[in-house]
Amino acid sequence: MFSNFSCKEERSSVSESNIANQNGSHPNLILTQNSVSKIKSQLGNVPVFDATLAAVKQDVDLAIKAGIDVPIPKDMAGGYTHTQHTLNYKNMQKAGVLFQLLEDEKYAIYVRDMLLEYAKLYPTLNRHPQERSYARGKFFWQCLNDSNWLTYTSQAYDCIYDWLPKEQSDYLNKSFFRPYADFLSIETPKYFNRIHNHSTWGNVSVGMIGLVMDDDELVNRALYGLKNIDIDNNALDNDGGYIYDKDGKAGFLSNLDSPFSPDGFYTEGPYYQRYAMYPFMIFAEALQNKKPELKIFEYKDGVLLKAVDALLNLTDANGEFFPLNDGQKGMSYFTSSLVSVVDIAYHYGNQKPELLSVAKAQNAVQLNAAGLDVAIGLRDGKEKPFIKKSMELTDGAKGDEGAVGILRYNDDNNTVGLVMKYTGQGLSHGHYDKLSFSLYEDGEEVIQDYGLSRFVNVEQKNGGGYLKENKTFAKHTIAHNTVTQNETSHFNYDFAVGSNNHSEKYLFDASNPNVQIMSAKETNAYPGTNFHRTMLLIKDAEHKKPYVLDLFKISSEKENQYDFPYYYFGQIISTSFDYKAEKNLAELSDKNGYQHLWKEAQGKAEADHIQFTWLNNRTFYSITSATSNNDDIILARIGANDPKFNLRRDPAIIISKKNTKSTVFASIIESHGDYDPVAEKANMAYSQFKAIKVVVDNKAYTALELEFKSGVSRVFILSNGNAAKDAKHTLKINGKNYEWSGSYYFK
Amino acid sequence: MFSNFSCKEERSSVSESNIANQNGSHPNLILTQNSVSKIKSQLGNVPVFDATLAAVKQDVDLAIKAGIDVPIPKDMAGGYTHTQHTLNYKNMQKAGVLFQLLEDEKYAIYVRDMLLEYAKLYPTLNRHPQERSYARGKFFWQCLNDSNWLTYTSQAYDCIYDWLPKEQSDYLNKSFFRPYADFLSIETPKYFNRIHNHSTWGNVSVGMIGLVMDDDELVNRALYGLKNIDIDNNALDNDGGYIYDKDGKAGFLSNLDSPFSPDGFYTEGPYYQRYAMYPFMIFAEALQNKKPELKIFEYKDGVLLKAVDALLNLTDANGEFFPLNDGQKGMSYFTSSLVSVVDIAYHYGNQKPELLSVAKAQNAVQLNAAGLDVAIGLRDGKEKPFIKKSMELTDGAKGDEGAVGILRYNDDNNTVGLVMKYTGQGLSHGHYDKLSFSLYEDGEEVIQDYGLSRFVNVEQKNGGGYLKENKTFAKHTIAHNTVTQNETSHFNYDFAVGSNNHSEKYLFDASNPNVQIMSAKETNAYPGTNFHRTMLLIKDAEHKKPYVLDLFKISSEKENQYDFPYYYFGQIISTSFDYKAEKNLAELSDKNGYQHLWKEAQGKAEADHIQFTWLNNRTFYSITSATSNNDDIILARIGANDPKFNLRRDPAIIISKKNTKSTVFASIIESHGDYDPVAEKANMAYSQFKAIKVVVDNKAYTALELEFKSGVSRVFILSNGNAAKDAKHTLKINGKNYEWSGSYYFK
Repeated sequence: MFSNFSCKEERSSVSESNIANQNGSHPNLILTQNSVSKIKSQLGNVPVFDATLAAVKQDVDLAIKAGIDVPIPKDMAGGYTHTQHTLNYKNMQKAGVLFQLLEDEKYAIYVRDMLLEYAKLYPTLNRHPQERSYARGKFFWQCLNDSNWLTYTSQAYDCIYDWLPKEQSDYLNKSFFRPYADFLSIETPKYFNRIHNHSTWGNVSVGMIGLVMDDDELVNRALYGLKNIDIDNNALDNDGGYIYDKDGKAGFLSNLDSPFSPDGFYTEGPYYQRYAMYPFMIFAEALQNKKPELKIFEYKDGVLLKAVDALLNLTDANGEFFPLNDGQKGMSYFTSSLVSVVDIAYHYGNQKPELLSVAKAQNAVQLNAAGLDVAIGLRDGKEKPFIKKSMELTDGAKGDEGAVGILRYNDDNNTVGLVMKYTGQGLSHGHYDKLSFSLYEDGEEVIQDYGLSRFVNVEQKNGGGYLKENKTFAKHTIAHNTVTQNETSHFNYDFAVGSNNHSEKYLFDASNPNVQIMSAKETNAYPGTNFHRTMLLIKDAEHKKPYVLDLFKISSEKENQYDFPYYYFGQIISTSFDYKAEKNLAELSDKNGYQHLWKEAQGKAEADHIQFTWLNNRTFYSITSATSNNDDIILARIGANDPKFNLRRDPAIIISKKNTKSTVFASIIESHGDYDPVAEKANMAYSQFKAIKVVVDNKAYTALELEFKSGVSRVFILSNGNAAKDAKHTLKINGKNYEWSGSYYFK
Repeated sequence: MFSNFSCKEERSSVSESNIANQNGSHPNLILTQNSVSKIKSQLGNVPVFDATLAAVKQDVDLAIKAGIDVPIPKDMAGGYTHTQHTLNYKNMQKAGVLFQLLEDEKYAIYVRDMLLEYAKLYPTLNRHPQERSYARGKFFWQCLNDSNWLTYTSQAYDCIYDWLPKEQSDYLNKSFFRPYADFLSIETPKYFNRIHNHSTWGNVSVGMIGLVMDDDELVNRALYGLKNIDIDNNALDNDGGYIYDKDGKAGFLSNLDSPFSPDGFYTEGPYYQRYAMYPFMIFAEALQNKKPELKIFEYKDGVLLKAVDALLNLTDANGEFFPLNDGQKGMSYFTSSLVSVVDIAYHYGNQKPELLSVAKAQNAVQLNAAGLDVAIGLRDGKEKPFIKKSMELTDGAKGDEGAVGILRYNDDNNTVGLVMKYTGQGLSHGHYDKLSFSLYEDGEEVIQDYGLSRFVNVEQKNGGGYLKENKTFAKHTIAHNTVTQNETSHFNYDFAVGSNNHSEKYLFDASNPNVQIMSAKETNAYPGTNFHRTMLLIKDAEHKKPYVLDLFKISSEKENQYDFPYYYFGQIISTSFDYKAEKNLAELSDKNGYQHLWKEAQGKAEADHIQFTWLNNRTFYSITSATSNNDDIILARIGANDPKFNLRRDPAIIISKKNTKSTVFASIIESHGDYDPVAEKANMAYSQFKAIKVVVDNKAYTALELEFKSGVSRVFILSNGNAAKDAKHTLKINGKNYEWSGSYYFK
């Protein structure tokens, strides 16, 4: 209809004798002519590569058997047409690789026939009928998914490009791919010209097809963004983020400059970094193969390779990403897109043997030179364990906009991870949770970060998209393990203000594995109030397990209410304080996320410390916290005002101080025992601590005393203003002189 | 002080040359002189036995190093003195075995020294200071634990009996063991003379020490109970159960007669059967060794061996017991006491090779002839898989008081277990839940039985004892997946009435693995109302997974309210009906367990069927249920009026019919898809069913139509009054004639 290649029979007969008849240069993106030769020579001799290839062949053979299905776009994510178009690009990409490596023309025919169906469909389409997105696509409800499609399909097209008669590739280039690339860029600038993971995909998809077609205009558009366009600087996307960067930056390189810190931390958070890493790395690989003069892997001091390392470290013991900002729990570095990312990092980096152990766990490789390299490394037993260490990952393009701190303790019995967030806002996926933290033990959440409120790709739940409660609860401060002042979220929940600010690193020192410390300040979340949080992960001879010391110092001239939650899991075993359970449940308050918390019970501390013990996953945990007599203790549960049951019914304990100026929250969080339901034995069911006390708190110093039940005590003193390693300090507490060098004392 | 053996130094020097000097007959209970010789000849050649022995040796060597600690009794369960005395009897039992098998006298010395400490302490003690129990013990808060102590310690005593100088064994017999046995029997008849798991332990402990001491009076007391005692027939124990059997039965043999059905089902339920099996089997083993003329393993047509088989079948795919009646979740056949039970059943039964696979998973054996036999079987590779099959286990001494039905479907992809309870009351641990059920998939609960409300041995939770909410919630009907009439529990929650009644089996047929059915009636729970529940486990060509068909027919002349809950887990994905979430939560009603349910949301069915889909453990489930327009649908959650947070906050959906006489609840429960958070893919997230309809319901027949979304339909017809296999039926439905033989039609 649109060309003389639309008749299947004719096409087959024209093309099938064409293989290797064109002495073109393709493939030259992800596979290259050289790498194809090398791979072929190794097949049968590289177990992980061979196994991946066999699995891919099985998938595609089934897909070919099932036949080509290119439905008219209709559904939201999770629906039939969405799922089918997603399947199509994945199968085409795989089929392209199979054609190159196995030399079986049926795979080329499959890609070609499907492409011709798409080329036929494309001109008939307006924007997708679902109107939910700020940037509606063609085959999908949002351009983002169209760019996924084009990024994968470009690879397939590259693999059959030389095999296709020139008339056919000309036809596809002119009638389909170039218009499609223009659609995703020129026709949708608010999608293409952002600093955002969406735009990265947009840039990469346009760049990848540009590289296939040798269309430098597209490649440059991808690298440097659209120029001279009319923009509305205040336009917002679906997630409430700004569409345009205030400095007018756009394009792939700008998306490398700005959301990435020099340490490779991606400001949106690990869940979105995982999503963005594939296009970043796959385009970098293509550029390195086709335009090596760009030296893309050396860009910004090698930030792409650092980013892979950072991302792998932003995970719990099971490889699942910390759900900072908007992040869906359960996503891990075993996701298929990270197979390519790890392989590319290995191949184009310094063949770090630690990456091989991740690849080994992934048990699959990218089917190209990078994957071959990894498979050979694995075959030859070169891998070393990837041991996650304590580290601080700075945020901000220049690394001066706060950081994420990760303290870890690993030995034969314990795998503890403590994550503290003192970053910038994190673009539109950021949460209002300055100085928040989460705690992991053996890959299980002990004190959780709620993550996002969304069921990705579950169609029944708002088409798989973000749920209302993401904005009304999950992003709010009270949903996090940090302090909310006067029942109002940080920066008054104002995205513009939040985006202009970030927390400040104060101290990070993991050099002593038994006393690791991180500390940061936040002075802008509430004007007139300064926060300073310090967290330690301590392995003490007095305690079988590592424990957390948590010091949250607040300075203010005005009286405020400070609410300080810990989101634990499981069942309450004992409390040192009396409380009264509510006969009827009501929301805790009426806005800023509080409306989603049921108040289940309330009590008063009535003591200078409280203790709270719970049981989860057959493990006993306790929080011991310094209090004032008059502090309210609230036992809360998520789920109020949740008309569609979108939220998980998880519990929290909230310490609330009212009419308070400056103060300190100081707590010990410990895992201390376990319950065996088969032996019916409770082992170490009680906290090992008797109390925690604030013994000094002034501008210069805060000192805490930790009392074990054994009678042993520890003193922790923090210099609140001088974090210098060589500073000398002396302080008299209760008649005893303490002298030390450096920012803190612990003994 | 109490004898001339109280000086440690003297004792050691007197006894250490005594080994094998006495040509006595001990050991002759669990170990025998013959079996000890045989074991010694095999050591080093029976891997599981050797490994168990090495582990036991390590435990005891550590205990010996730690020294003997026999504290003055003080604490409740979970507390220090309770835990120490428990440890002591376990260590003594192990040390006795080690002495026999390893011939190292230090183990005999350890047992002797500890026994002398106990003998010294015993006469100084009144009943335990904790006053919680109806039958307070000496070393423990309840006699039950003292009997545990004596049952294990008897074995240790048997092992060193011949090694001890006669003066010393005479002293222990007269000053300690005989008085202690009298204390547990004559002095505490309300504990000793019951039909109850407590008394089984009581009987066995007295019998075991009697066998060691060759004290036939004690052995007979154990076997036949106390005679001619004054009893109060209405006395109740801590759990609200009757203390004395109405027919005056007592003793070990009566405890075998009555709580066990001929199929080996123990009326209290599997959790307590697990607890009782050890004393039953260990005493049987001792009797078989010492009084083989009793032929104890042939008693009641071999009920002990049948009971082991029944118990192993009352478990999910992970070997965890179904928590029918009072049962703590997580208890499994990997508990150490069941190691002995399985080994004894293997040795004294017919060496069933399926038992070896359980023993293999337990990875430990009893250190005697039975365990050796198992270890040899394992070494020689004789084991066969223990495949749990569908079965009906009758209840009642004669097997005519209802039953538990278990339907299972196992193939490479599915492990489904459906458990329906139509038994008698189950003594004092019984719940008021006639015709209740629970559903398991791959060892995970899909529709849960709540189990008990208790944290066994967690001292902070009421000393590890039963919690108030066990009586106010867990035992009530509304806590179970069955029908509550007029917000009142079955038998009006009257233990006497409940104990006089039981449900009636109607039909059990698992002969067709693709259509398995069980059906039972309950006519006494609510006078004037008849319940008839039928559950099918169906593997249909139209569905990838097995599904449950649940038909609950109610006949009544009066108008009533019928509440029908399903206790699911996880998050709601979609509902076919509209509902309104409550702004504030209140109890569902004010008594009979309803006071512990929050009403989270309510809606009306407004259709002839509803559909409810949820996500748990990354799996999608749906209930499709026939309704009337006016049915209320309530989304509830456990946890109201729970001042100590003793209850789990688990959800339920309740279908409620008001002002209704006779009616039918008909539902399909299906597991139909899964969610992969790494691929972010929802696979088969929608129910495969369109609807379920009640097409006929009269006295003779109930017919349901199940409509798949594919367009395929199934018809199920049940003959409500004639379950005969050879009965011929015809029924015209909507003009179509159905003819079949047997109780039901499904096609």
